[in-house]
Amino acid sequence: MQLTRAADYGARVMIHFAGLEPGARTSLPEIARAVQVPEHFLSKVLQMLSKRGLIQSHRGASGGFELAADAASVTLLDVIEAFEGPIQLNVCLGERGSCCRKSWCPAHLVWAEAQEALVGVLRGASIAALAGSVQRTA
Amino acid sequence: MQLTRAADYGARVMIHFAGLEPGARTSLPEIARAVQVPEHFLSKVLQMLSKRGLIQSHRGASGGFELAADAASVTLLDVIEAFEGPIQLNVCLGERGSCCRKSWCPAHLVWAEAQEALVGVLRGASIAALAGSVQRTA
Repeated sequence: MQLTRAADYGARVMIHFAGLEPGARTSLPEIARAVQVPEHFLSKVLQMLSKRGLIQSHRGASGGFELAADAASVTLLDVIEAFEGPIQLNVCLGERGSCCRKSWCPAHLVWAEAQEALVGVLRGASIAALAGSVQRTA
Repeated sequence: MQLTRAADYGARVMIHFAGLEPGARTSLPEIARAVQVPEHFLSKVLQMLSKRGLIQSHRGASGGFELAADAASVTLLDVIEAFEGPIQLNVCLGERGSCCRKSWCPAHLVWAEAQEALVGVLRGASIAALAGSVQRTA
């Protein structure tokens, strides 16, 4: 029950983007340096963020990567789910792969409550707010 | 980021034990029926719970499995950790495999808060209380 390395790196990248001037474009090596992620892994992370519409890549001389979403409305939950799909602490909490014990199983209620507690914290953390806190401590 | 099937089954087993009379012994087939887990998988789950000191197995005619711990003090967190080790939502939250960004990374604080929210719910759910809630609805 652990965040994947890709999702962790994705969060670093998105917080980095949220700290740049709006519309700023940046290159793979610059991002790699800033977020301390090897370029070969980072390019996969950027590809996934781009596929999910969170960043945009531009080719050419003035190309690079830029944020494609409003930093104040993108949360850590959005970033994690971009990589891992909806958080599902236990199989019984999904719409598919349900469980016949669900209606009476007392553990099911605790899994649901634990998941909501986890998701609530991640949903409350926008990348804009997190980038702001880096800048204040820098 | 999902609970293993073994930990889920372990929780079912422990709640089942917590609902039995103190000192009651029960057999593998009986447990399998009650918790709706295939016997071959269940025997591995029971082995792990036994190894962690949560249940005891006895051989012989009056043998079987019984709870080895006080149901009121065993929580869902204890059961999960018996199977998966300490919950560590992200690698940076562990004592080992630490991260050089930890002291200033704003995401680190959110991972820690999210983990505490999750762990807090699981720590608050004793198997005795959960077994009680099954009996009340039965």
